[in-house]
Amino acid sequence: MWRELAALGRDSHSGGYRRYAWTAADADCRAWFTAQAEARGLTYELDRNGNQWAWLGEPRTGAGARTEADPGARTGADRGARTGAGAVGDAVVTGSHLDSVPDGGAFDGPLGVVSAFAALDELRARGARPAKPLAVVNFGDEEGARFGLACVGSRLTAGQLGVEQAHALRDGDGVSLRQAMEGAGYDPEAIGPDPERLAGIGAFVELHVEQGRALADTAHPVGVASAIWPHGRWRFDFHGEANHAGTTRIDDRRDPMLTYANTVLAARKKARLAGALATFGKVAVEPNGVNAIPSLVRGWLDSRAADEETLAAVVAEIEKAAAERGARDGVEVLVSRESFTPVVEFAHGLRDRIAERLGEGVPVLPTGAGHDAGILSAAVPTAMLYVRNPTGVSHSPAEFAEEDDCVAGVTALADVLEGLACQQ
Amino acid sequence: MWRELAALGRDSHSGGYRRYAWTAADADCRAWFTAQAEARGLTYELDRNGNQWAWLGEPRTGAGARTEADPGARTGADRGARTGAGAVGDAVVTGSHLDSVPDGGAFDGPLGVVSAFAALDELRARGARPAKPLAVVNFGDEEGARFGLACVGSRLTAGQLGVEQAHALRDGDGVSLRQAMEGAGYDPEAIGPDPERLAGIGAFVELHVEQGRALADTAHPVGVASAIWPHGRWRFDFHGEANHAGTTRIDDRRDPMLTYANTVLAARKKARLAGALATFGKVAVEPNGVNAIPSLVRGWLDSRAADEETLAAVVAEIEKAAAERGARDGVEVLVSRESFTPVVEFAHGLRDRIAERLGEGVPVLPTGAGHDAGILSAAVPTAMLYVRNPTGVSHSPAEFAEEDDCVAGVTALADVLEGLACQQ
Repeated sequence: MWRELAALGRDSHSGGYRRYAWTAADADCRAWFTAQAEARGLTYELDRNGNQWAWLGEPRTGAGARTEADPGARTGADRGARTGAGAVGDAVVTGSHLDSVPDGGAFDGPLGVVSAFAALDELRARGARPAKPLAVVNFGDEEGARFGLACVGSRLTAGQLGVEQAHALRDGDGVSLRQAMEGAGYDPEAIGPDPERLAGIGAFVELHVEQGRALADTAHPVGVASAIWPHGRWRFDFHGEANHAGTTRIDDRRDPMLTYANTVLAARKKARLAGALATFGKVAVEPNGVNAIPSLVRGWLDSRAADEETLAAVVAEIEKAAAERGARDGVEVLVSRESFTPVVEFAHGLRDRIAERLGEGVPVLPTGAGHDAGILSAAVPTAMLYVRNPTGVSHSPAEFAEEDDCVAGVTALADVLEGLACQQ
Repeated sequence: MWRELAALGRDSHSGGYRRYAWTAADADCRAWFTAQAEARGLTYELDRNGNQWAWLGEPRTGAGARTEADPGARTGADRGARTGAGAVGDAVVTGSHLDSVPDGGAFDGPLGVVSAFAALDELRARGARPAKPLAVVNFGDEEGARFGLACVGSRLTAGQLGVEQAHALRDGDGVSLRQAMEGAGYDPEAIGPDPERLAGIGAFVELHVEQGRALADTAHPVGVASAIWPHGRWRFDFHGEANHAGTTRIDDRRDPMLTYANTVLAARKKARLAGALATFGKVAVEPNGVNAIPSLVRGWLDSRAADEETLAAVVAEIEKAAAERGARDGVEVLVSRESFTPVVEFAHGLRDRIAERLGEGVPVLPTGAGHDAGILSAAVPTAMLYVRNPTGVSHSPAEFAEEDDCVAGVTALADVLEGLACQQ
């Protein structure tokens, strides 16, 4: 299962994955998901937002679903009894995503989906008899590598992203989300909130490779999430004056690259002092010529902290440092917040139940990374499991988990699902 | 004449010019040149390297030329008497280039070509009788905006760029120089050194808008060049480790953006201390994602100084600062020199003759900018005139010269040409 998936969307040059939403690589991953569902006799279903579901037991599809057997049907009378407000939230759902960041690793996302199918196999092998419907889900466009916004599939479902706003998203080539979905054979007019679907879910558990080294120094291959740090993206526009690099006297320059450089260093310093994170990983320069002082340097700040107050303070200090240096350089600095996700505290009841099930001493950890689980947690009791990553590296081909730890992850997930689905 | 040219290759969004070699905008500029030659009854000629010539009097075309009247002819017996080694170097040539940097200004290059035609008009109006052939030239691909190497047309002519090396140049879309020339209807197989052409030239004078403010604070609208500073381009590759910006602990990071930022600031400091120039105007980041610590930041350093020893010392200090900071950041720094142009001292005899002709007190200035005149100076007595630029801005739409100063430039150029061509 892992080997089949590992070949899809991999760049031969970098060794990294380039699985961006609604591309050919994404379609390959989706076909893999469908085949896995079929091989297990699960009911495959595509929801209105392009998320894929594979159901064991009676699907809790809500009003917005199309099943393979009944494509396009949204309000069939025969399904009234088990959809929408009439359904009690009892379904147990697990899964993650199959798309990747640019040149991403093999584990971030796919490990959660593969482990979900494997956990279902494990439950069957144990002879477990789920009393509730179980589903594996693949959320679309989690990384936001193409359209710049993360968790599009789960955000739409949870009503945290407006339909018009989603339609207007454009990739680096100017292709809109609407065009991309249409090009991939999906219906962009169908997207939107899916509250009835969420109302049918009693628990969502996402397994994920750890994106740090907190477990690496412990004896535990698996941990449980406590919270997701609040985080956001800020765009810093440094406006200077384009000029000739070979003839403009230093005192006549208004070079925004200097202000940018100083801000990058200030961000690291302020974050370290506050115990937070601040990263400039993306930059765009105009005109970006070797012999031209730039007219504009645009840098994107990603910042996260344990609480929102600390995060706000760190970003304010970085903005202040940028403005001060900008005044010295004759450079105007404009800052705009592009996204913000508040702190997510995972459901305490579910978390404690899982921790108990996994045995004494299982680490309960916060993370700085956003996930579909974080989005859904506003509407559904949600939990996360982390599998140990010895390098701590993430969003890179060097991201890794030992096979034994992956197996431990599957076992832990099966334990959790059994506890949730087989007991009342 | 100016108004016609001003409309070509201008970007409606930035207001800047995007006249890159062998593009449609370049073809428009070339058609303008041909029309100007024709309107004055000059003999139009395209040389083997795609440079355009317009001759008043008997062309000194060398062996590599094709004239409109005799396309493709290279060794016609009827032209033996006035080509090649048989010709004495007496032609007086003036001109510059019509291509631009990305979002460049209207003056850098075109002012020299327009002024050349205008100076010929002025000579005719004065009733001057040139005793030597006079030519206006438009050198191709001076800025190197498309293929990354400046002065391709003059370098090829002077034998300072190998034919194979030129053929192998590629633009940002992977299009080779060979393909680009073919696509524009030129013969890439014909390119190469043209020593016989250069041997026919007695003096080359390039008029150029000043790319700094040395004349701005004087009463002189026109200056004479003394020398071109040595300059070069160095590529700095900062190799770190791609990782997740939201989960990787600060101590686990190997973030090359920090090393790059520190190097940008160090370059400014070292250059200021040495009275030199050092600029990072171009940067490329991998993977360049908002939530990814980069695996690679690549920055290009443009540095120039009054002499080669100072330049070498400044670059060495910047490299040292980069390596030191890289060691702290866990980032490997690799530096490669991409180009280097030694100091150019313009022909003293010609320079003094021009300065005398322009009258007492005319400023004689060095410059940090490379020019076709600098390339040709190795083979031909060469001089440059600068026209005052009140803003000092260059390589930007804000680049400017007052109309009165442009007229003074034309008059000065006509004076110089008259002195060179009408006297023995």
